[in-house]
Amino acid sequence: MSVFPPALVRLIKNLGNLPGIGEKTATRLALSILRWPDSRAKDLARSIEEVKEKIRFCSTCFSFAETDPCAICADAKRNSDVICVVEDPGDMAAIEKSGGFRGRYHVLHGVISPMDGIGPDEIKLKELLSRVKEGCQVREVILATSPTVAGDATAAYLFELLRDKDVTVTRIACGVPMGIDLKYNDEMTLKRAIEARARA
Amino acid sequence: MSVFPPALVRLIKNLGNLPGIGEKTATRLALSILRWPDSRAKDLARSIEEVKEKIRFCSTCFSFAETDPCAICADAKRNSDVICVVEDPGDMAAIEKSGGFRGRYHVLHGVISPMDGIGPDEIKLKELLSRVKEGCQVREVILATSPTVAGDATAAYLFELLRDKDVTVTRIACGVPMGIDLKYNDEMTLKRAIEARARA
Repeated sequence: MSVFPPALVRLIKNLGNLPGIGEKTATRLALSILRWPDSRAKDLARSIEEVKEKIRFCSTCFSFAETDPCAICADAKRNSDVICVVEDPGDMAAIEKSGGFRGRYHVLHGVISPMDGIGPDEIKLKELLSRVKEGCQVREVILATSPTVAGDATAAYLFELLRDKDVTVTRIACGVPMGIDLKYNDEMTLKRAIEARARA
Repeated sequence: MSVFPPALVRLIKNLGNLPGIGEKTATRLALSILRWPDSRAKDLARSIEEVKEKIRFCSTCFSFAETDPCAICADAKRNSDVICVVEDPGDMAAIEKSGGFRGRYHVLHGVISPMDGIGPDEIKLKELLSRVKEGCQVREVILATSPTVAGDATAAYLFELLRDKDVTVTRIACGVPMGIDLKYNDEMTLKRAIEARARA
């Protein structure tokens, strides 16, 4: 039997469903919520329900959005002939924040990973192909999946699917990240940075 | 402007109020909630509101409880003549879990910390003193505040307050924790363990 009252035990259990939150952290968070002003707890509870009510997939790019199409797909000022393909909405947000891209996105919601039972049909690949049809205005597809085994494999698979289409397929550059002393990079990254060197 | 829809931005902001949760973690948690089944999100939202509605302080020991007195204060089988004084309900739960104590508790809800503007009046000290009155059945007060500067200072302050009362005042033992190789303990802990050695 727990020393905590049942309502608190339920909150701890439910917070434990969040990724990376174990029982001890969930307990700490729950005890902290108990000390909050009522309004702050109510705001959190309401915003959890609100995202589930309001947020849907954009039917074009499959990012999370309250409108369909989403703000980016609906923005006439953005470049419609380049699509940047990312694994999830978090990656899309990171690229947006960088300010380095003014085209459209396509969110795969995962990567091909046979070990986890995720094949091409489990992610939004077909939907990408139907955006890149013959005679459409898309001229470039940037493969911006992560430089991990699964991300690279998904990019390679997409490259094969798109190579006979009338589009240029590119992959984001891999190399040493900015602002980090060269010697602190891992061997794979340094090897790739040398291999992919460009004329200065 | 954020790339995320407003409802998601609000959820990220509200999750960021939790202790130890920065913007990146809040984003990860929020995106994960978005992928949850509706029922799981609703359970979390409801349990947040539920703890704020149902849980109050026990008016005797000041632990969190749905009933007043709390289950422990109301349990006639527990020893009423020993009170274990802890800083917060989390500490009380940890001692309960250890199974090493069958008396009553008193939760201070903080420690004396003049640097943070917390004096004796900001924590539940007066309430403890009124439980330890002349002629009451309390015979021992165990000071189980943490062995930190503030926890030790609070214990010392409490000891002074209680020394002229008709109770035995004890402090939890400090020494090397169980199951950890001696050499991995810090110097302060080892020093204290030697000083507080007991006849084998």
